[in-house]
Amino acid sequence: MRAGPSPEEVRRHNLGTLLRYVHVHGATSRAELTNRLGLNRSTIGALTAELTTAGLVHEQAPGETGRAGRPSLVVRPESSMVYAYGISIEVDRLRVARVGLGGHIQDRRETDRPRGMQVVDAVQPLATFIRDMRKDAPDAARCIGGGLAVAGMVRRDDGVVRLAPTIGWVDEPVGEALTAELSQQMGTDVGRLTVGNVADVSAMVEHSRGAAVGCDNVIYLYGDVGVGGGIVTGGRRVSGHGGYGGEVGHMVVNPQGRPCSCGSRGCWETEVGENALLRLAGREDRTGREAVLDVVEAAMRGDRTAQHAVRQVGDWLGFGVGNLVNIFNPETVIFGGTLRDIYLVAAAQIRSRLNSVALPACREHIRLRTPELGSDAALIGAAELAFEHLLEDPLC
Amino acid sequence: MRAGPSPEEVRRHNLGTLLRYVHVHGATSRAELTNRLGLNRSTIGALTAELTTAGLVHEQAPGETGRAGRPSLVVRPESSMVYAYGISIEVDRLRVARVGLGGHIQDRRETDRPRGMQVVDAVQPLATFIRDMRKDAPDAARCIGGGLAVAGMVRRDDGVVRLAPTIGWVDEPVGEALTAELSQQMGTDVGRLTVGNVADVSAMVEHSRGAAVGCDNVIYLYGDVGVGGGIVTGGRRVSGHGGYGGEVGHMVVNPQGRPCSCGSRGCWETEVGENALLRLAGREDRTGREAVLDVVEAAMRGDRTAQHAVRQVGDWLGFGVGNLVNIFNPETVIFGGTLRDIYLVAAAQIRSRLNSVALPACREHIRLRTPELGSDAALIGAAELAFEHLLEDPLC
Repeated sequence: MRAGPSPEEVRRHNLGTLLRYVHVHGATSRAELTNRLGLNRSTIGALTAELTTAGLVHEQAPGETGRAGRPSLVVRPESSMVYAYGISIEVDRLRVARVGLGGHIQDRRETDRPRGMQVVDAVQPLATFIRDMRKDAPDAARCIGGGLAVAGMVRRDDGVVRLAPTIGWVDEPVGEALTAELSQQMGTDVGRLTVGNVADVSAMVEHSRGAAVGCDNVIYLYGDVGVGGGIVTGGRRVSGHGGYGGEVGHMVVNPQGRPCSCGSRGCWETEVGENALLRLAGREDRTGREAVLDVVEAAMRGDRTAQHAVRQVGDWLGFGVGNLVNIFNPETVIFGGTLRDIYLVAAAQIRSRLNSVALPACREHIRLRTPELGSDAALIGAAELAFEHLLEDPLC
Repeated sequence: MRAGPSPEEVRRHNLGTLLRYVHVHGATSRAELTNRLGLNRSTIGALTAELTTAGLVHEQAPGETGRAGRPSLVVRPESSMVYAYGISIEVDRLRVARVGLGGHIQDRRETDRPRGMQVVDAVQPLATFIRDMRKDAPDAARCIGGGLAVAGMVRRDDGVVRLAPTIGWVDEPVGEALTAELSQQMGTDVGRLTVGNVADVSAMVEHSRGAAVGCDNVIYLYGDVGVGGGIVTGGRRVSGHGGYGGEVGHMVVNPQGRPCSCGSRGCWETEVGENALLRLAGREDRTGREAVLDVVEAAMRGDRTAQHAVRQVGDWLGFGVGNLVNIFNPETVIFGGTLRDIYLVAAAQIRSRLNSVALPACREHIRLRTPELGSDAALIGAAELAFEHLLEDPLC
């Protein structure tokens, strides 16, 4: 229970609210800001002036409107001059992007991650990417920090990766390792580095800018070898006590099922992850997104074994989503990563099984979607971890 | 995105915050309120004066403190003069309480509900209870409304009970029916009547006043024939798009399991609800909490069949809780209703199965608990639905 804010707290809150608005929605006229934020014109003018002085936004006259009267100035985020690094460590790749305020990717680098690669070997190319991108950034540009998304369970307090079964890491202080590597390569770091889970950050970006805009109750699923979940209820992320909420891939759906990399048995990801699909399709010798896409394409071409594999995985996918729908009563479910590929060929199967498991009231307004931002969501979402500090207090 | 509040909004917010504090924590000195709410003494004095004028609190000198100086006045909620009705419709009983501001039950009534009883027959005794309790309330006391908790899925927008499989109701406007019955019996109603789910309201009360005080991530489970869930993440209730979130009893845990009253198969409640226990114990001819308690007592006395039944149910209980722990990473899980009885004799079984299903990081700080407020939570929680409107804006 907190008392209401002081006038000074209100002013800082309003600065953050205005900056957040143009960060998410892009260039916005003063008139529209007045409207959307419920503040009067002079307050919007004063807030904009402060943010302009801080180098976070600039104002421009809009193009000709054809209407009489002086047109309202347009407020734009300083996308090329203020940026954060978005870094993503996934099962099969390492990626970094320089993301401008406003959420647009300005520059990006990517390399394969061989399975089994350890932390010490992963941070080296990531740091090199960052070093190179900094050289290419405008001289006067300001880096406000970085965000690192990992396909694993991240402790909120200190960013340690507690367990990333599909990557093979346990209790790894990845953020610290990357910061140390940056110091060595660049003689400096990028400022504060915040670590999060890749499905969580992707969910938040699809919620603010993508397939779930305007939806306060969202389940975002990301599949590769495992299945990660990012869940939004009442407009806020389900984070849990230590930051580990959303581990839907380890919801046991088949008590008689196969052993899982987590040590349990019959977890959802043993039925809908990459290994399940490739095993059912008789392609156990292969791994990775390409192998999954090959099975999906074979199914579309009429290959019976591939069709059976896709249907079987689609059935378990609908089953698990049905359980989550009963628990969360979401408006939108988004299928990302390999689950997107499976959804595109097995939508009917998924929907049918979902309907048999989920209660009618819980599923009646549900929309099944693919991501709008694709795999960029992980990079933009990682950068959002850094932007969040700025938006909380723009003049900090 | 909302701009910060105006000074008038801050004042009303602060009035609500102060009233909420004494509503939840009871009599509190001005000095402590100053401390807890982060407001200065004169502001606390002004807010208290306004709430006193509105008849919501009163101030008293505290008892002797033995310390020098003038002791700080104590602010108390007007528990006997401001009240709400808390009404609960459960599988086997109908209950009503008159709950004073501050959350204390002042008066209560209860009657059995024969299984199969329809809405028209249920609202009649409930309205009579309310009529009688109003007669017994102090003449000058102010009723601020009522809350109705139902063991079923309640649409948030209009309070219609969409589906209550264990009660046997579908699409029933129970709130309207009770309001109409009250008008007929009393020639008036009790003011605004807000309808909610019994597990949801119980969860919120255990969170604010009971076994989960100070925990922001809580799973409350209530068992009878079915299993209801009330879930708190980040301090807020998981409500979902239409208000149906938390239907954990219909998470399918056993795809090869028994048909469920919802039309699906192998739902959690088919393995841990009353029917499962009584079937396993060879007592299918009986129903209700007493029958469950008889099995639990027989197990404690060494009855092999009863012990097997309790172990089996405990195993499935731990299994489902493990799934929820992976999804929510809660601090506290509370076992209410018949699940409390089972927890008390099968805690080891539950914990063991939970540990095999839940990821170590997700379960490492978890506490398993029984409710502190017992079955009063449903009544106080129902009344809180009415108090919530008052606390949002005490001078409305």
